[in-house]
Amino acid sequence: MRKTRNGRPTMKDIARDVGVHVSTISRALNPKSNHAVSSELMDKIKRASARRDYRPNAAAAMLRTNRSRTIGVVVPDITDPVFPPIIRGIEDALAHHGYVAILANTDGDARRQTLAVEALRPRGIDGLILASVMRDDAEATRIAAGIPTVTVSRSTGDPQFSSVVHDEDDGFRRILTHLASLGHRAIASIAGPQTISTGYNRYSSYVRHSELLGLGQDRPLASFARAFNEMEGERCAEELLVAGRPFTAVACANDRLAVGAITAFRRHGIHCPHDVSITGFNDMPLADRLSPALTTVSVQHYQAGLQAAERIIDMIENANVTPTHIVLPVGLIVRTSTRSLTRAPDKEAGHADTSPINDNKNSRHKREEEL
Amino acid sequence: MRKTRNGRPTMKDIARDVGVHVSTISRALNPKSNHAVSSELMDKIKRASARRDYRPNAAAAMLRTNRSRTIGVVVPDITDPVFPPIIRGIEDALAHHGYVAILANTDGDARRQTLAVEALRPRGIDGLILASVMRDDAEATRIAAGIPTVTVSRSTGDPQFSSVVHDEDDGFRRILTHLASLGHRAIASIAGPQTISTGYNRYSSYVRHSELLGLGQDRPLASFARAFNEMEGERCAEELLVAGRPFTAVACANDRLAVGAITAFRRHGIHCPHDVSITGFNDMPLADRLSPALTTVSVQHYQAGLQAAERIIDMIENANVTPTHIVLPVGLIVRTSTRSLTRAPDKEAGHADTSPINDNKNSRHKREEEL
Repeated sequence: MRKTRNGRPTMKDIARDVGVHVSTISRALNPKSNHAVSSELMDKIKRASARRDYRPNAAAAMLRTNRSRTIGVVVPDITDPVFPPIIRGIEDALAHHGYVAILANTDGDARRQTLAVEALRPRGIDGLILASVMRDDAEATRIAAGIPTVTVSRSTGDPQFSSVVHDEDDGFRRILTHLASLGHRAIASIAGPQTISTGYNRYSSYVRHSELLGLGQDRPLASFARAFNEMEGERCAEELLVAGRPFTAVACANDRLAVGAITAFRRHGIHCPHDVSITGFNDMPLADRLSPALTTVSVQHYQAGLQAAERIIDMIENANVTPTHIVLPVGLIVRTSTRSLTRAPDKEAGHADTSPINDNKNSRHKREEEL
Repeated sequence: MRKTRNGRPTMKDIARDVGVHVSTISRALNPKSNHAVSSELMDKIKRASARRDYRPNAAAAMLRTNRSRTIGVVVPDITDPVFPPIIRGIEDALAHHGYVAILANTDGDARRQTLAVEALRPRGIDGLILASVMRDDAEATRIAAGIPTVTVSRSTGDPQFSSVVHDEDDGFRRILTHLASLGHRAIASIAGPQTISTGYNRYSSYVRHSELLGLGQDRPLASFARAFNEMEGERCAEELLVAGRPFTAVACANDRLAVGAITAFRRHGIHCPHDVSITGFNDMPLADRLSPALTTVSVQHYQAGLQAAERIIDMIENANVTPTHIVLPVGLIVRTSTRSLTRAPDKEAGHADTSPINDNKNSRHKREEEL
């Protein structure tokens, strides 16, 4: 008995067996239209289907209901440790409701986001979860037109999109308060890309809370990363050294930037936490096993994915759901990458050096340069 | 003008506008059957479609071709750092060919693998890529019946499945040769689950190459992890201490087990690499930034995903493709978690201690216990 290449019989095979047009089979298999099919013909179709072990696939149901129970999930890069727990949260919630996720990566490229959504649309996706949006993203609005959309981890200007994000402002408030409590006043920042809501909000919070805490920087000392990765963290750390203004701590916009900064400073003989305190954001996996272990902000990635998926299903299944914006709370996790400037350092840490990096009078960095 | 809840018009809307049955619309939109539709009616349908901005979704094409250009990808847990680069490789290759990936997680549970595939089947997936299979997995054979299937990173007994795996045997040969070259003879192993091909093959290679290298263990000294994670690494390290047989090095079946072992030994006052050398497998992200940085086997996860996707597309698009089995080469990466027993240790490392762990005469572990 002839089968299609991948072994599954099609509606066309059944039509050929019974000797009718394929649209008749389609009508017979649809409970809403099979009243027009004679019971004699229905029996023939049923027998032919059984003989070939024909199982109507989701396509027929999709045509009837215009629902695929499929959600498009677009992330910048699944290999960035931020995204797997978000995707896992999304997938767990979707599975619970009988939905599945189609995944696409954009590498942070706006054009690839458009291509990804254009590849998803003709597959009849019921909704979109975007972790890839820019802060100002008219293109996302255009490509997602007519599809229920939730942004996760990031937000954009479009009020039609629901969003699930983290409390970036409270995170940076906690980080700066912690550093100030350890005696740090000259706190530099390695900021994330300002075109992304997370990068923009964290930097704004750094500026605002530096002022509120009276951290006496007349103007912010910041270097701006073009991406949230280790390489950019290394470059920005060296940019802070080039700037020549003194600092004793660096608050980074995420953990990967902090890891890069620690590496770059070490190359210059500036050791964390002995010579400089460094903080991250996200509490990515293994942040606790690094050397030094990262002081950072814990963020509920899995929960964000879960809630984004719950939102999108609500928007699909219930008419007139208005867009909502959820902000998840964050926590501070103090480890060994930050140290007090006022208390005596640990014995193992050797001699105490509380002079700021780039301090012309007596900085460790200057001393290294003068050797 | 009435629209469906999520804003997209359906074939049914067009049928209502034109005043015909929906199956007539279906026939009109199919190039293979529209010869039976009058040109007058075709014009009406085209005008109605344009008025509503109706775009036939993939479902219609799926019904005609029985192809969804959709691949089911099943992994144990996307938050395990092994899987994101595999998925990324799969997604990049699929996107290149106009395919998309539906993702599902199983948490290593055979029943959830079945549920995942059962959720994917009615969506008309063209193929399956399984990173979740067990070594002996009759259930996978049953649920994937009739669907082109490739296993990635793992293999199973079914000769119908193609596979893309890593050269586990060469990896363990390199690890043991490296440790032996540093003077280690008493090399214990923390093995992975023996129900999974990676765990089984790595342990078999540990036993075989220990013998070939003449490492003089009369019987293998191994502890078996129930999962490839840090917690099991901690438990197995303590199990090795309980066993009471001497060792100077531990070859672990993956990096996460090694990270757990380093932590557990440290709690017992046994420091890596000073008191014990420890190796991993996979070279997961941040393995180079840990303290100590992990000596491990580099594995081509992204490439494995890419090749698995290329295989599955080949199987779907070309008739009579026979199953193939690809083994990707691996490399040894030496970092600071392994040290020589024969050369003098670094100055910073303090006094040399080359006595094995669990050696009754003079082991550091025993000394700690006797305090």
